[in-house]
Amino acid sequence: MTAPALSPTLALACELINRPSVTPLDEGCQALMMARLGAAGFALEPMHIEEVENFWARRDGGTGEGPVLCFAGHTDVVPTGPHEAWQSPPFAATIDDAGMLRGRGAADMKGSLAAMVVAVERFVADHPRHRGAIAFLITSDEEGPALHGTQAVVERLRARGERLDWCIVGEPSSSAALGDTVKNGRRGSLGATLTVRGKQGHVAYPQLAKNPIHLAAPALAELAAEHWDDGNAFFPPTSFQISNIQAGTGATNVIPGELQVLFNFRFSTESTVESLKQRVAAILDRHGLDWQIDWALSGLPFLTEPGALLDAVSASIRAVTGRETTPSTSGGTSDGRFIATLGTQVVELGPLNATIHQIDEHILASDLELLVEIYYQTLVRLLAC
Amino acid sequence: MTAPALSPTLALACELINRPSVTPLDEGCQALMMARLGAAGFALEPMHIEEVENFWARRDGGTGEGPVLCFAGHTDVVPTGPHEAWQSPPFAATIDDAGMLRGRGAADMKGSLAAMVVAVERFVADHPRHRGAIAFLITSDEEGPALHGTQAVVERLRARGERLDWCIVGEPSSSAALGDTVKNGRRGSLGATLTVRGKQGHVAYPQLAKNPIHLAAPALAELAAEHWDDGNAFFPPTSFQISNIQAGTGATNVIPGELQVLFNFRFSTESTVESLKQRVAAILDRHGLDWQIDWALSGLPFLTEPGALLDAVSASIRAVTGRETTPSTSGGTSDGRFIATLGTQVVELGPLNATIHQIDEHILASDLELLVEIYYQTLVRLLAC
Repeated sequence: MTAPALSPTLALACELINRPSVTPLDEGCQALMMARLGAAGFALEPMHIEEVENFWARRDGGTGEGPVLCFAGHTDVVPTGPHEAWQSPPFAATIDDAGMLRGRGAADMKGSLAAMVVAVERFVADHPRHRGAIAFLITSDEEGPALHGTQAVVERLRARGERLDWCIVGEPSSSAALGDTVKNGRRGSLGATLTVRGKQGHVAYPQLAKNPIHLAAPALAELAAEHWDDGNAFFPPTSFQISNIQAGTGATNVIPGELQVLFNFRFSTESTVESLKQRVAAILDRHGLDWQIDWALSGLPFLTEPGALLDAVSASIRAVTGRETTPSTSGGTSDGRFIATLGTQVVELGPLNATIHQIDEHILASDLELLVEIYYQTLVRLLAC
Repeated sequence: MTAPALSPTLALACELINRPSVTPLDEGCQALMMARLGAAGFALEPMHIEEVENFWARRDGGTGEGPVLCFAGHTDVVPTGPHEAWQSPPFAATIDDAGMLRGRGAADMKGSLAAMVVAVERFVADHPRHRGAIAFLITSDEEGPALHGTQAVVERLRARGERLDWCIVGEPSSSAALGDTVKNGRRGSLGATLTVRGKQGHVAYPQLAKNPIHLAAPALAELAAEHWDDGNAFFPPTSFQISNIQAGTGATNVIPGELQVLFNFRFSTESTVESLKQRVAAILDRHGLDWQIDWALSGLPFLTEPGALLDAVSASIRAVTGRETTPSTSGGTSDGRFIATLGTQVVELGPLNATIHQIDEHILASDLELLVEIYYQTLVRLLAC
């Protein structure tokens, strides 16, 4: 008796996992994907930007104008930590006796990449002529600085007026069971370095100094207590957190001349960058502080409201798993924030995220077959003629 | 024509300044003083404690029991900073064309030491038989940790029941003109290291963390705004100053687990160490903080109320300069706080403090002659038969 062959999805997932593509390396993953997509009728456009490999691929359905559905993701993975800590080598994909696909990237997100390719191959075989177009936007720098990855590709697409109606990002969105959660947006992230100036002096002569800690304390208390907004149906309320505070040289008899405070907003679509900046300035000014802020915007909030894409994804999840999916905007940032700036509806849908970035990253192998089916049905719902 | 010889006071001041006795070094200054005092009939008692040289000297006036007037001071000086920044070498005393005595220690306090020795020499020559006794308490560690200096000598004196009624410390007390200010006490100094505990977490998930900066800010604002006492006729109100604050590792997406705050009280005799500790605790508790404080008492407040010593010093200043002196308890700490624990009336009287601890430390050379005369007249007022 011969060993059972792996399914096309698992075979491709293993081939991708076996390539040690730690950020920003790609190690041939994209060439593998492009070979498959080229054979399926995609026009391929590698975009090597600085040290980062990316590609854009697009297949027109032959029916003229129509909506564009893009699959997005990354071939890079986070470092493994010590290999000997893994129960099986991180870059030698294996399926264990419990049916778990093991290896770095199994969940985040080479499993999803394999599922996308196989789903699209099946769809174009079944529907060679389809509405609009299918596209892929793949980078090898999502886990790193991300400057020359999706963000840079999006700028090129924007510059030439490329249309992008819908995007499915393969990030591992599921929580306890495949498809239970999709991400339909992310909060914005706005960082700041606040400097409050006082006047240095000796603690024995406070009348000759201005203590910036004393001056700032009531303002920081007010910022921490401020109610920024109520959030909305899709976003939790905007939150403000101070991550670092520092003043003084260690000397116990010197009033410091300056206080430095680092803080961060995670903000909903009920607030804007400008409104947050103005409200912070108003509070600092009301306390009469001599202050200066360097702002750093990490990402604007984006939201995909119920509509064609979210409907198609939810219906496909329900059809394949019987589950009602929950749209969520919680958690950290993702490349979806860059794509959304094109006016695109963006949904993140992928396997369970319980073991991402950890030793012994793994997912249920059979979940990849379900994911192929969900992606396939979404394609049918959105693009079948 | 020969160059004019230096006066005995300036000659001794220059000899002392030329010895580079940076804390805790003495470099022979005390041997020089002891030689002069021994010749004037003093019993000499060097007290070498750990690495610190100190001495105690006493001359009885031959009239049996009577009050003891002690001169106290230090032979050590603070570091010079870069020598090339000085207009004349810091350890080569010089008198410039404007009549300024220049060198490290000119004001703090080798000028005063020379004036004390010369004044006492003159007094015992004029009054070989005098009331009570004259003493000297000299250390080489006032500017440093001060553990094995005056504090240690005072403990030895206390242990053997040595009586000490009055003490003149030669610290540079004058502000704009010689004798305009004497220090008749010092505020207490109470330091603290406050730790406020929270719970570390990710800024994107504040509901899972407790931000100690946010929790502590209103309490710090209240501490900074608190009115601790009104002071009294001799002391300014108690003041509270935060000298250092620190939380966070530099990472901008992590809520820190702990906040550390260093603060210091300079307190009047209207507050006690216990009352301050209790009031701080009450404020921290009222804000529901999880806190811990390590307290460090640097010195209790002491006060010399109007009486024989202050009267004699004030009258002598008036007689020599025409000025009404102002008793003050402002400014930092001094060795006077240790001596006062013996029940001694303590007054600090010395030259102008405008340039102490600075590059190009200097005083008006002629002020030392006036200081000799003030010390001499004080001796006459208090101890002449």
